[in-house]
Amino acid sequence: MAKKKAAKKTTKRVYFFGNGKAEANAKMKQLLGGKGANLAEMTSLGVPVPPGFTISTQTCHDYNALGKKWPKGLKEEVAKNVAKLEKAMKAKFGDPKKPLLVSVRSGAAVSMPGMMDTVLNLGLNDDVVAGIIEKTGNARFAYDIYRRFIDMFGDVVMGCEHEHFEAAIHKAKVKAGVENDNELSADQLKAVVEDYKKIYKKDVGKMFPQDPMEQLTYSVNAVFGSWDAPRAIRYRQMENITGLLGTAVNVQAMVFGNMGDDCGTGVCFTRNPSTGKKEFYGEYLINAQGEDVVAGIRTPQDLKHLKKDMPKAYKELTALMTKLEKHYKDMQDMEFTIQEKVLYILQTRNGKRTAEAAITNAVDMVKERLIKPEEAVMRVTPEQIDRLLHPHFDAKATRNVIATGLPASPGAAVGQVVFDAEVAEAWAAKGKTIILVRIETSPEDIGGMDAAVGILTQRGGMTSHAAVVARGMGKCCVAGAGDVVINYKKKSFTVGKTTVKEGDFISLEGTEGQVILGKVPTVEPKLSGSFGLFLKMCDKIRTLGIRTNADTPGDSKRARDFGAEGIGLCRTEHMFFEGERIWPVREMILAADDYAALLTGLEDTEDKKEIAALNKKYAGAKKQFEGALKKLLPYQRKDFVGIFKAMAGLPVTVRLLDPPLHEFLPQEAGNQKEMAKRLKVTPAVVKEQVAALHEFNPMLGHRGCRLAITYPAIYRMQARAIMEAALQVKKTGKKVLPEIMIPLVGSVKELAIVKADVVDEIEQVFKEKKSKMPYMVGTMIEVPRAALTADEVATEAEFFSFGTNDLTQMTMGFSRDDAGKFLGEYVKQGIYAVDPFQALDQSGVGKLVEVGIALGRTTNPKLKIGICGEHGGEPSSVEFCHRVGMNYVSCSPFRVPIARLAAAQAAITNK
Amino acid sequence: MAKKKAAKKTTKRVYFFGNGKAEANAKMKQLLGGKGANLAEMTSLGVPVPPGFTISTQTCHDYNALGKKWPKGLKEEVAKNVAKLEKAMKAKFGDPKKPLLVSVRSGAAVSMPGMMDTVLNLGLNDDVVAGIIEKTGNARFAYDIYRRFIDMFGDVVMGCEHEHFEAAIHKAKVKAGVENDNELSADQLKAVVEDYKKIYKKDVGKMFPQDPMEQLTYSVNAVFGSWDAPRAIRYRQMENITGLLGTAVNVQAMVFGNMGDDCGTGVCFTRNPSTGKKEFYGEYLINAQGEDVVAGIRTPQDLKHLKKDMPKAYKELTALMTKLEKHYKDMQDMEFTIQEKVLYILQTRNGKRTAEAAITNAVDMVKERLIKPEEAVMRVTPEQIDRLLHPHFDAKATRNVIATGLPASPGAAVGQVVFDAEVAEAWAAKGKTIILVRIETSPEDIGGMDAAVGILTQRGGMTSHAAVVARGMGKCCVAGAGDVVINYKKKSFTVGKTTVKEGDFISLEGTEGQVILGKVPTVEPKLSGSFGLFLKMCDKIRTLGIRTNADTPGDSKRARDFGAEGIGLCRTEHMFFEGERIWPVREMILAADDYAALLTGLEDTEDKKEIAALNKKYAGAKKQFEGALKKLLPYQRKDFVGIFKAMAGLPVTVRLLDPPLHEFLPQEAGNQKEMAKRLKVTPAVVKEQVAALHEFNPMLGHRGCRLAITYPAIYRMQARAIMEAALQVKKTGKKVLPEIMIPLVGSVKELAIVKADVVDEIEQVFKEKKSKMPYMVGTMIEVPRAALTADEVATEAEFFSFGTNDLTQMTMGFSRDDAGKFLGEYVKQGIYAVDPFQALDQSGVGKLVEVGIALGRTTNPKLKIGICGEHGGEPSSVEFCHRVGMNYVSCSPFRVPIARLAAAQAAITNK
Repeated sequence: MAKKKAAKKTTKRVYFFGNGKAEANAKMKQLLGGKGANLAEMTSLGVPVPPGFTISTQTCHDYNALGKKWPKGLKEEVAKNVAKLEKAMKAKFGDPKKPLLVSVRSGAAVSMPGMMDTVLNLGLNDDVVAGIIEKTGNARFAYDIYRRFIDMFGDVVMGCEHEHFEAAIHKAKVKAGVENDNELSADQLKAVVEDYKKIYKKDVGKMFPQDPMEQLTYSVNAVFGSWDAPRAIRYRQMENITGLLGTAVNVQAMVFGNMGDDCGTGVCFTRNPSTGKKEFYGEYLINAQGEDVVAGIRTPQDLKHLKKDMPKAYKELTALMTKLEKHYKDMQDMEFTIQEKVLYILQTRNGKRTAEAAITNAVDMVKERLIKPEEAVMRVTPEQIDRLLHPHFDAKATRNVIATGLPASPGAAVGQVVFDAEVAEAWAAKGKTIILVRIETSPEDIGGMDAAVGILTQRGGMTSHAAVVARGMGKCCVAGAGDVVINYKKKSFTVGKTTVKEGDFISLEGTEGQVILGKVPTVEPKLSGSFGLFLKMCDKIRTLGIRTNADTPGDSKRARDFGAEGIGLCRTEHMFFEGERIWPVREMILAADDYAALLTGLEDTEDKKEIAALNKKYAGAKKQFEGALKKLLPYQRKDFVGIFKAMAGLPVTVRLLDPPLHEFLPQEAGNQKEMAKRLKVTPAVVKEQVAALHEFNPMLGHRGCRLAITYPAIYRMQARAIMEAALQVKKTGKKVLPEIMIPLVGSVKELAIVKADVVDEIEQVFKEKKSKMPYMVGTMIEVPRAALTADEVATEAEFFSFGTNDLTQMTMGFSRDDAGKFLGEYVKQGIYAVDPFQALDQSGVGKLVEVGIALGRTTNPKLKIGICGEHGGEPSSVEFCHRVGMNYVSCSPFRVPIARLAAAQAAITNK
Repeated sequence: MAKKKAAKKTTKRVYFFGNGKAEANAKMKQLLGGKGANLAEMTSLGVPVPPGFTISTQTCHDYNALGKKWPKGLKEEVAKNVAKLEKAMKAKFGDPKKPLLVSVRSGAAVSMPGMMDTVLNLGLNDDVVAGIIEKTGNARFAYDIYRRFIDMFGDVVMGCEHEHFEAAIHKAKVKAGVENDNELSADQLKAVVEDYKKIYKKDVGKMFPQDPMEQLTYSVNAVFGSWDAPRAIRYRQMENITGLLGTAVNVQAMVFGNMGDDCGTGVCFTRNPSTGKKEFYGEYLINAQGEDVVAGIRTPQDLKHLKKDMPKAYKELTALMTKLEKHYKDMQDMEFTIQEKVLYILQTRNGKRTAEAAITNAVDMVKERLIKPEEAVMRVTPEQIDRLLHPHFDAKATRNVIATGLPASPGAAVGQVVFDAEVAEAWAAKGKTIILVRIETSPEDIGGMDAAVGILTQRGGMTSHAAVVARGMGKCCVAGAGDVVINYKKKSFTVGKTTVKEGDFISLEGTEGQVILGKVPTVEPKLSGSFGLFLKMCDKIRTLGIRTNADTPGDSKRARDFGAEGIGLCRTEHMFFEGERIWPVREMILAADDYAALLTGLEDTEDKKEIAALNKKYAGAKKQFEGALKKLLPYQRKDFVGIFKAMAGLPVTVRLLDPPLHEFLPQEAGNQKEMAKRLKVTPAVVKEQVAALHEFNPMLGHRGCRLAITYPAIYRMQARAIMEAALQVKKTGKKVLPEIMIPLVGSVKELAIVKADVVDEIEQVFKEKKSKMPYMVGTMIEVPRAALTADEVATEAEFFSFGTNDLTQMTMGFSRDDAGKFLGEYVKQGIYAVDPFQALDQSGVGKLVEVGIALGRTTNPKLKIGICGEHGGEPSSVEFCHRVGMNYVSCSPFRVPIARLAAAQAAITNK
């Protein structure tokens, strides 16, 4: 379709904007990219935008589809729009007297900062430079923009090495004895221009092109080509950006912030993107181009100083900021340039912000009646909630602060110092926690930044590459910490007399900009202020229940504080591991085989003699096995009392023992000897039992309710512990809602047998304690067969809880412990969009979940259904759970707030 | 329902038959059991059956449901029928002058030989015995039946030890200096009766009951109770008998074969149950009761002698045999008794027969136009076909025949001698091959017989317990080998001077009745004669294709001989293991990690410098990996040439490499050293790679097409080998139909990527060889996700082959390597009716298969679909495959004939 359409002559590919009129509007984001649509919209709004035109994203797609060739008609359309622009600017390409200079920028429908190549000052050539000098008398300015243009054009468009240009200007500065670029004189810059041309010729193999139209053509191609560059592809993969045609190209008349001290350029936000506070926020540089601000080479000034420096421009800018925020109903991130005291807005877009700012903005804007609660809820991403739940430094801990930089991205990070992005990725892959330390960062460092937990730069401001990207990633970042002197070669940095080497630990405090020596202890976050208000807003909207996976009273309490409405998964296996209790567990396991032989034997006979013989033969094993369980009972009961108290009034789903028995035995010879000694058997006995319990595929082995089929006494003990605890807590006047969950069920008969034992034991407890209470017995749906026969399973189960971890393993045939070796490649090749253990595989595993729900509700329309895999706290999976009609999701305590938001967003998007 | 109905007074519980009239007929098998319905039918047919009545199976069920109590009204109904019987026989219970004696037998709807308890001569007491002596003057006969009755009633009904009675009569015989029971005089037997009464009193705790009605009540209860006896339950489990209410009780007037030399009793078959030959066949004993023939205590005479002994009875009997076979349209197994030259038929039923006989019968009866081909096909069980495919002894091998017995059940067996059923079960469980050797067998030995591969008895005839049960089980059996003298205590038997001890190997030849010392080599069976005709009959009826799983030319040829219509699964992994070729495989694996790093690196960059650097860095690994594949290519090609030749004209489905790479590396340290030496690396390198490739759950690990995602070169090499071989064989004028199968696919994208490589390589081969040929690329459906997304997968697959081994593992969450530890218990507790790795779990895994077929055919209605798991040769699974619309099943060569029959039966039952 797209190709055919592209082939038609009638396709409009280029859209003009300027002087208050535009051929496009804000709704055409898909076709013109965010920037292009915005420029059109701003122009129509009367914002002082330099005129220009936008080449559509469709054209980028066609260009790449045609094998890097311009589609028919594009050349003519571009020429027509250049002519229109020349008219609007009363200037001409290559005209020394009135030269048209333009910027060429990329801009896709989704913002990808730093990913796309940009060219400024296009249109300069020897004649034009001479003309500018003649006209303005400002030779320094003319040579400065010329050398910048050659560098940028050479580097970005033609693939020269930027370092070669850098080396040349460095040499010039050394020669001139100055520190900064802007200290070079006109003549010195002129010499630099000549050096640059030579470098260009050497690197490219031909002369620097003097024809502006040729410059433009190359630049447009470079923008198009950059769409498919590895780093762009990697960024899209990393951010899960799909379904875009390509990038648009924005060609816009240049305005200059570097024509003198009545010029400047800057970036501003309508609210503080770091804290969310409603205040004008930004930075600018006098006598500079926009790149200088963003690249972080010079450290810029706070926006408030502009009020004094250029009061008129400041007033105009703040008025525009207010106007644009009201128009877009969101915090705006604007680029501006002041040329000879005249303000131009280069672009505006919804600003990236920290998680804290996003939430504060959302809550404030609802208060200001700028947006509705539903809109506010959609403005905050679950990832942002996640970030806020990351730990902060313990306020009581001593901090050895060795340097302070800009608080570029809030949060706290502790990690090992690494000076190279690739090394950072490699170390992180090995499980190390990394702080990436760079003089300044560039798009090439994206992978390393992603791998790091925090970023520290020596240079750059609040809107430098490092700061913007780190905020986007939600990573802690301290930028422009000038005291930190980095030596890449030595792999170390020094602050005064302190030297920090690769691998040393440091801590970063992004909210205050601190660089701290060593590891600072962290504390857990709390929900308060805007955060609490925001989540309550979510709760009003969502219909899905949120429970938590918690195994201890402490976890339970924390989850309850985070808003959990019950426990969806209380695993009981840790109750077998902890401290002294592992010893009765091991006693039990040593007697397990003989105990099983006894049970099997008794099933097979009615002969009283045989029964007596069996009982005699296995009396020891019976005593040992059942005795060990008796020892475990009080431990378990105590655990449950704690959990039931912490969750009083809320339901608590307890999963009975799940792991295979061999997990409770020591694998290492030394530990086996210790166990043998303690249990008074020979080491050979322990070794033999370890060998006997070995499984080739333990995931699919003798575990879950399969243990209860072989050893009914284990679940009986657990059921007893649960109900004895429940009755005990009930006595104190607290409400207990126990839900007993049988894991790894594959067949209704299996569930029926296990459930009958559990219910029988509970009835015995009721009789003994002369007290009763309501409870439920349900099952996990984690074996595909259980989902496929859910109509049958539902005849015995009072609730279903989808165990999507194991369900994913079995449905996709991936062992979570092993798949890491190849799943990365699977995601890279697009076989699965994301790791299915992170986000539920909706089209595969999800189908089975849907089948299970539909079948289960056929039998029991009121069946309570939830999910308790890791997916329960993953936003896209939460959305799925809402959509397929689950009653609740259950996730780890720290993900409860995320799930609350995701559930609210699901309710809104599925209205 | 059943209980309610039972409570109603109107339920008829007892059905009378006699004198040519019966209250029931052959159709009432479920209610009256096979025997009861048959007795009624025979009576109506005019067969001389002793009169009697049958108590329904429903009554047995009610009795057990009521906690071993007679339901209301039963007592009255039994009394009424006893009265009727007394009238018919002109005799009375307990009347010394004209005593009514009856037999009490069990009889369920399905025949369970030896499982149910039987009581004969009921009605005898002191007075009656005195009366009989007075009337007949035959005191020996009277005391003989009396002592038999006390023994049987005591043992079977009241739980006395049979051995106590045996010891007493043995003592009497020793005292009298005779060898056989029938050599004891009347007085001696009278003394035995007195001894028996004492034994009875001692064992039971009260006097032997003199009231016939009391005897009858106890006996009926014993029959009912035996339904739930452990050995009965075990037999039903073993034979998969379910859905029955219970057993009926047949009370029938006694006739006597032991009243003198003009009396006799026997068993006869209308055709030879061993060979299937159409001839009268049977055995009888003069002056004996039926139990004597079946129990194998005396060795009986061949039926043909009866012609001379009692010509009238013989003529009558053979006429009845012909009549009954025509009536029932099947070979009949009849019990008869001749009392004072008058013939009585005690029962007739469809006869158990050997596999060979079943097939001969089926083919012959179609020829005789007695039955239609469809009926004939339904008469033979797949298990019987299986038996015929068991190996026979090599005719050329020397046999050290130490003894000859009766050829009780054909076949050949080699195993270790064991003298105890329980020991046999235990040894077999350890994987040993057992020959069970017993003086005679009894129902208590069933488990041991099932565990053994062959049975040898010292005593007993062709219809002894051992012979009947062995034929039913299809086990080789040599019975009544009198020269074999067994000593249970010493755990050995002797034949002349040869002593064979427990654990020694012997061989049994069941068709000739040979007992052979040591192990005789076996040869593989062929399809010929009736067998071939029968299978051709099946082929005409079936619609399902039958392919085979074969990996070598030899296997392929054998399968083709057995009727395979192509290869459904040719595994290629053995081609990596065999002989020298393992070495290039290992070379490849040692280079695998670096090779993968190279491929991943190349994916990530377009930078020419980076590409060059990568190629340089990993040049060695690339050379080693790709070089190893080049070495493997000719091996694989040669293998395929052989297979394609053997299967010329038939399709061959080749599955590309499936197992994880670690399977090709040695796990043991010594072998690792050898590998290191040979491949010129340090042992540490090998050990490290083994460790690196270790997986926690290899079933769900890096294998199948996942290898091809990481290492496309492996499948490319295989695709090349297949097509080069195919073109080479094509050149010789033979037709080759290659079908390339991609294993372990979980997603259509995965298949698309792997398939693209395979197709690309094949197109290269076509170009190089300047020749083309049609081929298909399809996939295994073995990961549940593939079945769930089969509509998508079918867009890339030209055929589906359900790999139900892995599909079962993943759908049910059972590791086949580990589940053995608990699956037995699962089957025992009825959670799954059978081991799901033997017979497809239709309600779980089967659902997924149905979903996969339905979805696949949505996309491609003509999609070719088969199955290639072990289930492809299992009859109930074959039926399922037919029912759900598969095109073919594929199974191991030896199961091909079974599949042909199963497919034909499926076509008939699903017509």
